[in-house]
Amino acid sequence: MTIIKKLQIKTKGLTDIIDITSYIEAILKESKIKQGIANIHAIGSTGGISTVEYEPGLLKDIPSYMEKLFSYKDHYAHHNTWHDDNGASHMRSFFIKTSLTVPFEDKTLILGTWQQVIFIDFDTRPRSRTIVVTLIGD
Amino acid sequence: MTIIKKLQIKTKGLTDIIDITSYIEAILKESKIKQGIANIHAIGSTGGISTVEYEPGLLKDIPSYMEKLFSYKDHYAHHNTWHDDNGASHMRSFFIKTSLTVPFEDKTLILGTWQQVIFIDFDTRPRSRTIVVTLIGD
Amino acid sequence: MTIIKKLQIKTKGLTDIIDITSYIEAILKESKIKQGIANIHAIGSTGGISTVEYEPGLLKDIPSYMEKLFSYKDHYAHHNTWHDDNGASHMRSFFIKTSLTVPFEDKTLILGTWQQVIFIDFDTRPRSRTIVVTLIGD
Repeated sequence: MTIIKKLQIKTKGLTDIIDITSYIEAILKESKIKQGIANIHAIGSTGGISTVEYEPGLLKDIPSYMEKLFSYKDHYAHHNTWHDDNGASHMRSFFIKTSLTVPFEDKTLILGTWQQVIFIDFDTRPRSRTIVVTLIGD
Repeated sequence: MTIIKKLQIKTKGLTDIIDITSYIEAILKESKIKQGIANIHAIGSTGGISTVEYEPGLLKDIPSYMEKLFSYKDHYAHHNTWHDDNGASHMRSFFIKTSLTVPFEDKTLILGTWQQVIFIDFDTRPRSRTIVVTLIGD
Repeated sequence: MTIIKKLQIKTKGLTDIIDITSYIEAILKESKIKQGIANIHAIGSTGGISTVEYEPGLLKDIPSYMEKLFSYKDHYAHHNTWHDDNGASHMRSFFIKTSLTVPFEDKTLILGTWQQVIFIDFDTRPRSRTIVVTLIGD
């Protein structure tokens, strides 16, 4: 059995980190699938999906280490193509990737107590984003 | 329903970035599955799969930032094991990973307009690579 | 058809890298699913799953490059929240991610000859870890 649902999320950009666990859990509760896998995929090439302990410290550490690796201040060849300013956003998204797959049972994601699913908007401006949640299982 | 198909791709190595979106779309069009997830997996430990806006600028930025993080010129302990020269290739593949899962509906990958699925060959020489596309859905 | 199995693994922490391929293969052999995808997911926010050529050199290179990017000696804002010392563990896990999906056929993972599935424990102390293996297919 396959179910595809879409979430719409408003972000501030610039490595804005949003806990989307409860949205996915709500989709799971409403579905008829009890166990399987949930694929969470952000449409676009400047977002990212991963898991993290969603607490104020790591919400500072992630942007800080991202800036060390792929600074918003660097010059990217991407900027020459479209006169864009978001080469760092693309590089971060390429590295972190826009998709994650997590198992669930009893209509609940199998995560650690301090492990949340996050969407990160790496783009340089506020965006409205579509996140696709696909459930496959029994 | 499950369908497994294999693509054969020739690469130049050294972080050669290839847009494989159209190959996956062709497999989707020929299959009987309308909606579900497509897992794209590159066999081997020196390749990578992700998504990116496939344009000339980012095709320069990716190798450039990869070189900053895991330089082909560094000495890797891996070189001591087999007298290989591709420690950087293994490190890049370990980081980016050889697999990605993307949802599809109406036999079309759910991607952004400027978001393509890429295979990257990080190895230090030209290779012929097998990419496995697994479709699961209804 | 969906099958969920759990592995329990003891680790030493500090970027301890464990080859879990044979455990997953054993689950595949015992199951009734012949082909499909295996999702391998480590519960918790300080672990990681990827593939690598499991040989002594790369087992040194991975911790060494991880230390360059996210040093255990750095100060992380995460340490201020709980007076923890494992900010580097969280950053590494966020980057590498706790989940990987690999296809299988004839009850065998489709991997390269020198490509193994690994679990990495990035935490700063020994842990007992649960790894969830979900098989979906025919």
